[in-house]
Amino acid sequence: MVKKIDHIGIAVKDLEKAVEFYEQMLGIKCEGKEVVEEQKVKVAFLPIGDTEIELLESTDEEGPIAKFIEKKGEGIQHIAFRVDNIEATLEDLKNKGVRLIDEKPRYGAGGAKIAFLHPKSTNGVLIEISERE
Amino acid sequence: MVKKIDHIGIAVKDLEKAVEFYEQMLGIKCEGKEVVEEQKVKVAFLPIGDTEIELLESTDEEGPIAKFIEKKGEGIQHIAFRVDNIEATLEDLKNKGVRLIDEKPRYGAGGAKIAFLHPKSTNGVLIEISERE
Repeated sequence: MVKKIDHIGIAVKDLEKAVEFYEQMLGIKCEGKEVVEEQKVKVAFLPIGDTEIELLESTDEEGPIAKFIEKKGEGIQHIAFRVDNIEATLEDLKNKGVRLIDEKPRYGAGGAKIAFLHPKSTNGVLIEISERE
Repeated sequence: MVKKIDHIGIAVKDLEKAVEFYEQMLGIKCEGKEVVEEQKVKVAFLPIGDTEIELLESTDEEGPIAKFIEKKGEGIQHIAFRVDNIEATLEDLKNKGVRLIDEKPRYGAGGAKIAFLHPKSTNGVLIEISERE
């Protein structure tokens, strides 16, 4: 059902410093940035192999990334899996008893349709599923 | 310098239950398991796209995975980047001022040469670099 890892989301306090680390130290280049208002987050995209690192800085102290950092510190916040049909996937997961945060897809960075599964159903991992055209 | 994401390490309490979740719910198949004595961990390998999920269950309550779960709960514990030459990469990172946990490579799951960077240098992310033949 899942095709590949769409991206790995990493919560950071300072997007510019984090981008500098990945570019200068690991040689992974940032290929764009975007503000996603709905998620209260500024995102930097760093493609690598067939997947991507997304560095996430909160634009609001009440946003999910700010709250994550407050609770757990900076670090890997979520992992996103690419699927072909997000509505069908959500229906299937729900039927199998997986608890969903989003019963219907929302729009995330890069115009993807996204939905989050509840960490209670996923061994504590915040899992996003995403469909892109 | 970095070629791709080698794997994503996820700390779990119950390896069998976690494998079942990824297989049954997301359709990502486990292709093998291994005990890595040095890391006090039992690992399940779940390839996806050009990378892999590694599910990690501690074999010892003093092991790094047990301690991680105690402190942060189950969840994504580290991200590993594949490099061609781990010794040269460590030398380069050290020269650039990155703090290393391992100055020299150790052997990890699947016989890979691995080394960890210190989260103080990496925006809180436990980063592993790995070289495989």
